[in-house]
This record gives sequence, C-alpha cells and structure tokens, in this order.
Amino acid sequence: MRGILFAGGLALIFTLLGTRVAIGILVRRGYGQLIRDDGPTTHHTKRGTPTMGGSVIILSVLAAYFAAKLITWRQPSVSSLLLLFLFVGLGLVGFLDDYIKVAKQRSLGLRSKAKMAGQTVVAIVFAVLALQFPDERGETPASKSISFIRDVPGWELPAILIVLLIIVIIAGASNGVNLTDGLDGLATGACVMVFGAYTLVNIWQNNQWCGQADISYGQCYEVRDPLDLAMVCAAITGACFGFLWWNASPAKIFMGDTGSLALGGALAGLAIFTRTEFLLVILGGLFVVQAVSVILQVGYFKATGGKRLFRMAPLHHHFELKGWDEITVVIRFWIITGLCVAAGLGIFYAQWVAGT
Amino acid sequence: MRGILFAGGLALIFTLLGTRVAIGILVRRGYGQLIRDDGPTTHHTKRGTPTMGGSVIILSVLAAYFAAKLITWRQPSVSSLLLLFLFVGLGLVGFLDDYIKVAKQRSLGLRSKAKMAGQTVVAIVFAVLALQFPDERGETPASKSISFIRDVPGWELPAILIVLLIIVIIAGASNGVNLTDGLDGLATGACVMVFGAYTLVNIWQNNQWCGQADISYGQCYEVRDPLDLAMVCAAITGACFGFLWWNASPAKIFMGDTGSLALGGALAGLAIFTRTEFLLVILGGLFVVQAVSVILQVGYFKATGGKRLFRMAPLHHHFELKGWDEITVVIRFWIITGLCVAAGLGIFYAQWVAGT
Repeated sequence: MRGILFAGGLALIFTLLGTRVAIGILVRRGYGQLIRDDGPTTHHTKRGTPTMGGSVIILSVLAAYFAAKLITWRQPSVSSLLLLFLFVGLGLVGFLDDYIKVAKQRSLGLRSKAKMAGQTVVAIVFAVLALQFPDERGETPASKSISFIRDVPGWELPAILIVLLIIVIIAGASNGVNLTDGLDGLATGACVMVFGAYTLVNIWQNNQWCGQADISYGQCYEVRDPLDLAMVCAAITGACFGFLWWNASPAKIFMGDTGSLALGGALAGLAIFTRTEFLLVILGGLFVVQAVSVILQVGYFKATGGKRLFRMAPLHHHFELKGWDEITVVIRFWIITGLCVAAGLGIFYAQWVAGT
Repeated sequence: MRGILFAGGLALIFTLLGTRVAIGILVRRGYGQLIRDDGPTTHHTKRGTPTMGGSVIILSVLAAYFAAKLITWRQPSVSSLLLLFLFVGLGLVGFLDDYIKVAKQRSLGLRSKAKMAGQTVVAIVFAVLALQFPDERGETPASKSISFIRDVPGWELPAILIVLLIIVIIAGASNGVNLTDGLDGLATGACVMVFGAYTLVNIWQNNQWCGQADISYGQCYEVRDPLDLAMVCAAITGACFGFLWWNASPAKIFMGDTGSLALGGALAGLAIFTRTEFLLVILGGLFVVQAVSVILQVGYFKATGGKRLFRMAPLHHHFELKGWDEITVVIRFWIITGLCVAAGLGIFYAQWVAGT
C-alpha cells in the first residue's frame, strides 16, 4: 500500500516539475506541433505548441515505479515489467512518429502502415511473453480466456487466437486514446480517471486474491501480481495528473503520439492482466465512442459516396463545429468519462457482491 | 447499494434536464447575476448569466433521494433527514440572498449580518437536533467528541461547546464553498470530488459498522445510519455532476449562494455525522485555502494599513490577475482538489488498516 502511494506521488511530482523543464527545452529547439490542415480552423493558433510531452510521462512513470520499488525493497514482478514494456514500446513507436512530424515539418508523421507495423510488432512480443511465466499457482500474466469482469467460463481460446485478440485490444485502445487526444487536456484528464479506476481494481483484486490462504474461493480473483500492477497504475495516474497541470487549456504542451499510444497500450495491458477486457469498453467508453465515430464517419462516407454522418470526426470536432467552446467539449467529455468509470466500477463491485 | 446507485443516477438525470429548463425560465424572466464591481474586469461579460441554479441542485437531490427511498421501500433515517434539513435550510438563506440581489438589482444581496444570522439559526437548530435521537445502540447522529478520522478519545466536550463547534464548522464550510464559487464550474467540480469521497467514506463505514454482529470491535465505526447517508451523498454528487454540464465554462448558469451555502452546509453535516471533522479540512482543502486567503488578505490589509498580500482574494482571482486563463485556474484547482481527496481518503483508509 505504501508502495502505491510512493509510486503515484513520485510520478506526480516528476511530471509536474519535468514537464515544465521539457516545455522550456522543446520551445527553445522549436519542436512545435503541426496542426492538421483539415482540423477546425480555430486550431491553427495551436501551431508551435511543443509536443512529445508523453516522453515526460513515460520517463516519470519508469522513474517513479523503480524508485518506489527501491524504497519498499521488493523485486518488480513479471506482470509489471511486461506492462512497462508495452507502455514504453508503444511510446517509442509514437515518439518516432512525432519526431518525424517535427523534423520533417509535415503533419502526418510515420506513414500509417509503418506506424501500424510498429504497434503490431510490440503487441505480438507482448502477447507471446504474457502467456509465459506461470507463478507458483500456474497463473500467467495474461489468461487464455476472453474476460469481462473475470475470465468468462468456457471461453478458453487457442493460443493463436488469444494473441490475435490481444493485438486487437492493444490496437483498439492505443488508437482510441490517440484519436481522443485532439483537444487541450481531454485525453490526459480522461486517462487520470480510467487509470485511477484500474488502480482501484488492482487493489481490490489484491485484497480478494486467490493466492491468499484464508480467502473463500467463489469470490476470489485468479490474477497475477495485482499489488505490483497497482503500483504501475498509480504511477501512470499520478503522471497524467501532473501532466494535466500543463496540458490543461490553454495547453503549454501536448502529449503527442508518444503519450497517447503508450497510455492506450497500458490500458489494454491492464485490461488483459486484470481479466477485464470487456469492462475496458465501459471504463474507457469515451475512447471507444471516439474511435467508433471515426469508423462510422469513414464507413458512411465510403458507403454513400461522399456524405458525412458527423460534421467532423472524431466526435469532439463535431461538437466544436456545432458551436460548443473547446473547453465545454472537454469538460462535458470528462463528465461522460466520469460516468463511464462510475458505471464500470459499479458493475465490477456488483459482480463481486453477487458472487459472495 | 442499489439505493445509492438510484439516488446518484436520478439526481444526475434531474439536474441534467432540470438545469436546461431552469436556464430557459430564468433567462426569460431576466434573472441574471450581477457581477461584483471589484472583481476582475474580464468578469463583467458574465453579467446576465442566470443564477440561483443551486435551487435545481437542491430540488433534484430531494426528489432523487425520496424516489430512491420509494424504490427500495425503506424509511428515511433520522441522520439523512437532518442532513437534508441543513442542506435545504442553508439553501433557503442563500436563495433569499440571491433573490434580493436580482430583484433589487444590487450585487451584495442580504446584508451580511442578516445572512450570518440566518446561517446561525439553521446551524443551531441542526446542532441541537443532531445530539438527540439515539438509535438502539445509543448512537446519536452527531457525537459529543471532536473527531479527526474517528472521534478522538478523551475529547468529549460539554453539549454547549459541541453546539458551538458545529456552528463554526457549518459557517466555515458554507462560506468556504461560497468563496470558491467565483469561476465557471470551479466549486461544482470540486464538490463532485469531495461529495464523491464522502459517499465512499459512508459506504466504507457501513461495511465496517459496529452495529453488525460479526464485526471485530477494534476497527469498526461508531456512526449512525451510514448507508442512508451514502444515499444522500450520492444524490448530491450526482446532482453536482449533472449541474456541471451546464455550469462548465462558459457557464450558462451559476449556482449562486443558494447552491454554495447548501453544498457547504451538507459537507459540514457529513463531516459531523461521519466523525471526520478534521478530515474535512484535508478533503475540502481547496475550500479551506480559499477561505484562509480571504482572511489573510483582510487581516494583512488592516494590520499594515492598506497593503495587500495577494493581488485579489479569494485566491483564484489572484492567479487570474497574474495572467492565468480562467479555465487554467479552474482545472489546476480541480487537480489540487483531486490530490486533497486522494490524500484524505488515503489517510482515512490507512487509519483503518493500522487499526486492524
């Protein structure tokens, strides 16, 4: 428990201070964001705000987690190391994309195929490794079942399908966060809530963990290393919170793909490790809605030969073009995220109560 | 548990829809807020935004709580009725103040003495009643001790001093929220977090309640009606959340003194009933800091014969005048509130863990 507080608190302090420093360095070097030309025209004023702020989040999480491990003098668990691998790996893919955008001064970065290839390679390595490393009870970090609030009984899949499923979840979550990261503070604030929820889920799973001697079986959770995952999760929550200080409207820095791919990937990893893959659809409902709005928009456009379903996708631009202030969209979307998180945690807890 | 979800969900829906209706009515009648002439000049554009939105919050909470009681078919508890009395009573004092402001078109409302007298009368009635009504275990809604996370042992006070203490807590909390309610969405968003925290505290106290047969004594909580208080608390949280939809920048409506006095009073009542009087100082740290900034400013001004400590008090105006955007102040103050709530809940939980 102390470790969780250390990890969260340290990551918060690191991003609060570190982001300030990063803004200075990036602005001096002229590493500003290029705004997509097809976005709302009001966004053109954002040109020049430094991006790649996600690198501060990633470094802060790593530093905070390992510092907290040193303070509490425990070994890192396999699950946490794998989660951090996914987090950093996708962050690197995002960083390459951001870097090319800035260096070549073009708004589109890595060609989308190269980006998808990078995401897929990281996801495959993660998926394969996550099915190894059984603990003394035979539990591997990822399970071979589809999961909602726990593994769904009778839905155990062959390893190859599980790997495919993991790739899809990672691609979905990382692109969902990536698409949501289009208004000042929007994705960061939503991430604070969803990672905060996963911190609670992990703590709860640790308290009701099947590995303990005196727990009654029906209600306990078959997971690996929940307490240590809670530490990583708390570190990410704290890091996002500190970053929000600078990323809030008017943003002094953006997280860039560096941040959004890493955070989305970490969400996917957490859903997989806590056996709550479909619960993530509820907890991260905002990210899902944003991604679906893009898919619908593109699909409708192609199917009708040029008509649009929304004024612009992702959804936040639609409301902006309807005349909502940017900040109104952000706060209302945060409210929706808060409701999603409340609903998700409510379902998670209700299932436990019903199981007792 | 179902009752808590009903109460929160209904209150949310009521304010989401009700506030929309109220904005229409108030605007048609021309009941706009007058902005204090000594505030930042940028605020003069807010003239005309309707106020008294707190009345929607109050009515929604009442409707949601009693509807949830009907659905779950349980009697309301004494504690909840007392809390609602305080909530509504202070809301009425605030409403008179708001109404006079609007009707007489003067920015200052009730003379401050009349307002204080109203607050004090409501607080005295509440304090006297809260010390009656012992349950079968002899527990009254308010205890006779000073409390931090529980009643502090050996700090039982004579009834008259307890009544005085309760008045001071109510005056402090209601004026703290009142002073904080100066930027779009600031007080509303902070209230969502602090009332959310008190919902958790009440649920936890109910789970670990001394009134149960099978609980071990050392760690249980000596409180009255925690589950029913959680319902009221959830209703207020939901109502604030729905109201924030409209109150977020740029605010379409303000809560006015109607809302801020009622919400502050409810916070005080919750701290008293859950035996967490000093924990409220941490959970509601933002409100405390804001109130203290005014006290310091006025004290320093008088002591030095005219010098100012801050550019303007309460503190949020100080940062605005330093050049922060209004919305930046709001989001950063929310971040601070989030940290306060995390710290407060952490201390609350740590005390329980240490007590086992």
